[in-house]
Amino acid sequence: MTLNVLFSAPSHRWHIYQRPLEVAFASAGVTVNLSGDHAPNSVDYIVFAPNGPVDDFSAYSRLKAVLGLWAGVETVVSNPTLTVPMSRMVDTGLRDGMVEWVTGNVLRYHLGLDPYICTQDGSWNPVIPPLARDRRVTILGLGELGSACASALARLNFQVSGWARRARGIEGVTCLQGSDGLDHALSRAEILVLLLPNTPVTTNILNASALAKMPKGARIINPGRGPLIDDDALLASLNTGHIAHATLDVFRVEPLPKDHAYWAHPNVTVTPHLAAETRPDSASQIIAENIRRFEAGQPLKFLVDRGAGY
Amino acid sequence: MTLNVLFSAPSHRWHIYQRPLEVAFASAGVTVNLSGDHAPNSVDYIVFAPNGPVDDFSAYSRLKAVLGLWAGVETVVSNPTLTVPMSRMVDTGLRDGMVEWVTGNVLRYHLGLDPYICTQDGSWNPVIPPLARDRRVTILGLGELGSACASALARLNFQVSGWARRARGIEGVTCLQGSDGLDHALSRAEILVLLLPNTPVTTNILNASALAKMPKGARIINPGRGPLIDDDALLASLNTGHIAHATLDVFRVEPLPKDHAYWAHPNVTVTPHLAAETRPDSASQIIAENIRRFEAGQPLKFLVDRGAGY
Repeated sequence: MTLNVLFSAPSHRWHIYQRPLEVAFASAGVTVNLSGDHAPNSVDYIVFAPNGPVDDFSAYSRLKAVLGLWAGVETVVSNPTLTVPMSRMVDTGLRDGMVEWVTGNVLRYHLGLDPYICTQDGSWNPVIPPLARDRRVTILGLGELGSACASALARLNFQVSGWARRARGIEGVTCLQGSDGLDHALSRAEILVLLLPNTPVTTNILNASALAKMPKGARIINPGRGPLIDDDALLASLNTGHIAHATLDVFRVEPLPKDHAYWAHPNVTVTPHLAAETRPDSASQIIAENIRRFEAGQPLKFLVDRGAGY
Repeated sequence: MTLNVLFSAPSHRWHIYQRPLEVAFASAGVTVNLSGDHAPNSVDYIVFAPNGPVDDFSAYSRLKAVLGLWAGVETVVSNPTLTVPMSRMVDTGLRDGMVEWVTGNVLRYHLGLDPYICTQDGSWNPVIPPLARDRRVTILGLGELGSACASALARLNFQVSGWARRARGIEGVTCLQGSDGLDHALSRAEILVLLLPNTPVTTNILNASALAKMPKGARIINPGRGPLIDDDALLASLNTGHIAHATLDVFRVEPLPKDHAYWAHPNVTVTPHLAAETRPDSASQIIAENIRRFEAGQPLKFLVDRGAGY
């Protein structure tokens, strides 16, 4: 039997997901007619991301379940027209990708690679970097992503401090908490990684006062959330040289406007929100496997608890 | 009894090593008169690096052993006037530094960081890299340095293949050997790391034929030895785009001459032989401990096998 699966997401996602989903369905042994344009009353499953065409599920009379493409479901979980089970995305690919991106950028700063990559002027002046065991890295935020990054950096021998609202224990990582802990974490941050969630408490957590607590010449890596940084304060601190460099992957407004000062700043690397992207291949496998399970009479994995909201 | 230890290395090294060596000898309980200028017939031990004053050991009539300051010993191993045991440097600082430099550059290639670092033109085109679990990295050479790098990359989930002359077993790494194994290792090398010793067998191991066996678009990282690469063949392969990019830290002639084609090539990153720098503190401790051992009648650690050439 062929299942009609509707892909409902912003249109540019179709080209990214069509083939990985088709490969994953075939590999899971599920026969599927995948389209962005099925008649509502013919649809068996919806692969769903916010800001796609579907925001009213009422007309989908034979819908069995909704498969969320992202981890966050806050925009759909309270939708009263959604009456079938929904799964959210729990993708190890997102976590692993974040660890790789953070580790790569920490090592890039640690080793001082940028001048060699961008300038090749024939000068031979070896500057031997210190060892990771003599380099202090601080991670703000020790959730799933922050903890995984902290552990990976500790395994590379970095002196890793981590700060979170609640007490945490991670092997090889100095875990700090509270406002005193935050000051201490910042004061040790030769390289600072921001992986906090965006909440009223964390907005502008990296303001002028926090930046001033960091060591002179520190570097900042933000793959977390744009509003964690007070942008004007960071630019001021980059201009004085107190902060030596920043690599920013997330912004208050995305795409980052072309006239934003970050683009032109010589000591800022802008990347286009790619550190924490769900991976089409692994996400597609998870969706295909979940449909296979549901068709076999098993419950969905990563079922959204609509009472709890996630 | 005071031992006369001659420091024979390029003159600028004396200021780097004098104090760490004196501290290490004192700490090992060995009484030493360390100098760069002992009379040859008074010398008990030589701390040795290439391109220093000593290239003929004949006059050193009471010499007991030579302690190499570097891991590579190819310039001295076949010296017929060297008739006493020689150790090479096996330094955790050197090893850890190499792991950090190799891991940083592998991640840099894996994540495609260069365009973001060097070009900030306001364009927002996220290209999501694959995960390390889907990236094949090959390491040629599984000695102390190659094994440590292979293990670190495997812990980051890369698909790591390693090739060595003799069979090796490293957890998480596909270990290959022999000429069939070399072909297979090259054919899987999306990113290739060269960490072989320089011997008559390995000279030009990366020649036109070997490069042709690598996948199109492969990247090469050479922190090993300059002569491992046939430079003309690599330049030709970079010019056709078969090899996408190379990061080279070691060269046949160092400093790399200013008019060498590598400096000007847009797809080559030259670094000034800094990946495998011995760290003075830890290296001095190893040398002092080895002299203490030898004086106590034990064999040198890290004894050079002059038949094998390393």
